[in-house]
Amino acid sequence: MARPPTSRDLARLAGVSQATVSRVLTNNPKVNPETRARVLQVLKDANYTPNALARAMKTGRTDTIGVFMTRVTSPFHAELLDEIGRVLSSTGLHMILWNIEHDPEETVAEVLHQRLVDGFVLTSATYDSKLHTMALASGTPTVLLHRGIDELECDQVVGDNWQGAYDAGKYLVDHGHTDIGLVTLVHTGNTSRDRDLGFRAALADAGVKIKPSNVVSVGVPHADGHAAAEKLLSRKKPPTAIYTVTDLLAFGILDGARAVGARVPDDVWVIGFDNTEMAAWESFDLTSVDQPTHAIVETGVNLLRQRIADPDRPTETVTLPCPLAIRGSTANRH
Amino acid sequence: MARPPTSRDLARLAGVSQATVSRVLTNNPKVNPETRARVLQVLKDANYTPNALARAMKTGRTDTIGVFMTRVTSPFHAELLDEIGRVLSSTGLHMILWNIEHDPEETVAEVLHQRLVDGFVLTSATYDSKLHTMALASGTPTVLLHRGIDELECDQVVGDNWQGAYDAGKYLVDHGHTDIGLVTLVHTGNTSRDRDLGFRAALADAGVKIKPSNVVSVGVPHADGHAAAEKLLSRKKPPTAIYTVTDLLAFGILDGARAVGARVPDDVWVIGFDNTEMAAWESFDLTSVDQPTHAIVETGVNLLRQRIADPDRPTETVTLPCPLAIRGSTANRH
Repeated sequence: MARPPTSRDLARLAGVSQATVSRVLTNNPKVNPETRARVLQVLKDANYTPNALARAMKTGRTDTIGVFMTRVTSPFHAELLDEIGRVLSSTGLHMILWNIEHDPEETVAEVLHQRLVDGFVLTSATYDSKLHTMALASGTPTVLLHRGIDELECDQVVGDNWQGAYDAGKYLVDHGHTDIGLVTLVHTGNTSRDRDLGFRAALADAGVKIKPSNVVSVGVPHADGHAAAEKLLSRKKPPTAIYTVTDLLAFGILDGARAVGARVPDDVWVIGFDNTEMAAWESFDLTSVDQPTHAIVETGVNLLRQRIADPDRPTETVTLPCPLAIRGSTANRH
Repeated sequence: MARPPTSRDLARLAGVSQATVSRVLTNNPKVNPETRARVLQVLKDANYTPNALARAMKTGRTDTIGVFMTRVTSPFHAELLDEIGRVLSSTGLHMILWNIEHDPEETVAEVLHQRLVDGFVLTSATYDSKLHTMALASGTPTVLLHRGIDELECDQVVGDNWQGAYDAGKYLVDHGHTDIGLVTLVHTGNTSRDRDLGFRAALADAGVKIKPSNVVSVGVPHADGHAAAEKLLSRKKPPTAIYTVTDLLAFGILDGARAVGARVPDDVWVIGFDNTEMAAWESFDLTSVDQPTHAIVETGVNLLRQRIADPDRPTETVTLPCPLAIRGSTANRH
């Protein structure tokens, strides 16, 4: 099969100008009915699919959603991306993915003004990023998934990170732990902040103090969880439990525990956050706070479609529960 | 900031028709010089970024590459996707991602004719898929990365899967293994085929027979590697080494070994294929054949850019070496 016919080829076949073909394609009333009929017959014979660009110019719709994301190699983000693709596709929408780790904000600024997409999904909103401000200012329908921004006038669907973290803290205290490690991220987004503050609140409510030396602030990678565990567990009197704010860090903590010969859960309990598929693998068998990824994405895409259909509807923030999934990295299953 | 100005707003500001604004934006010579100057001044005052769609209509370029991929939640595919995003971005190109697990071929057929992109990257070519045939027939510049199709007239960049698998087999034989398990995928692509055949060739060359009962054919998920290991290692006389064709299956095999109480490497050696970042984690410490992901992507994107610039240049197939990365899942490090 050759390259599909262009409007130039079709014009030649119909014996009209390219401009006339364009007018037919855009339903311009200036074309006389006989000419229109002839052009349409040629289009039909050629099995012509109108160029998406031409169609988008005409309808103002691209049926494409732009997704901004970071760190697709993190297991949770890969699952989130997969789920976004699945849900968009099931509603007949395509996805343009921008990895904002690689595409800096200047590029994003250009993208926002190009209107290649009908709407935006932002999964990595941070307080100090201009991305959500720029997205909203561009007038493009936008939804924040997974990460939200407090009080922002924008549709948002997030997990109840604070309550999930609180429940994890309460679970440790209820099972007698008083010397507890907290491996936390610098708070650039609401997820890491609430996963930290909720956990601290549970301990405070139970009258359990966290020693300052038990709090380790780290970066995102597995290696950082590993180093934090080595630091906490090499002490003369190490903590009896460690909670952290992502599964990826928890996997690093489990590996760090292995590296210093600490047994999980005999010597130390470990709890992560995300409940990725990998958390259930024997290698980790990780107790983790569950992010309801499917529900977050489905609810969010639904809100975005409503916003595209009606740009003036009031914004909504939906918060979904994050229950604790208990596994072998904490010894007590009740 | 409000929604950016449309061509309608600009036409009103310049006191001309929308059609005239369009003619100025597309450098149509029919606009008289004074009108053109007035419109350009209005555009400048409004700080107007021409709509990407309009620009694409004019230049025929979208600066966007369409990527077709499956299984972004598999660790290797996530790394591959991340690398493709990084390399495209570093050359000023955007990425549209289609997950062909979710977007069936009918959708792909439509996409191919829409010309939303300047080129395609296919990472999951299989013999029985029509995708590469459709991509080439559409006349859109296309490169196959990671998975290739023998003898196809298309730019392709692949790892030397056969030789990498051969080296893994030779390494096991050289270290005295004669009772060896092979956990293999149904061959729908050149990767799983060559990773199977190369391994068998090494054993055959060394005069080592693979017992039919030591060959287990599985699907892609971790759970399938897990089940295969349980099957092989629950025998009265289990194999002393297991080789498999992806890291994800190898992680499943390590977890299956744990589940039946087999120690790695004391009771059984395990080798995977991909050398993902996770292979280096203590949980796995997996000996694995390295896929040169960065070099595959960089070489492939470079070929694609050359093809976009010169559609008639001869096609190239580049095959890159896949050396064995030796770790603790095989006891002998020399």
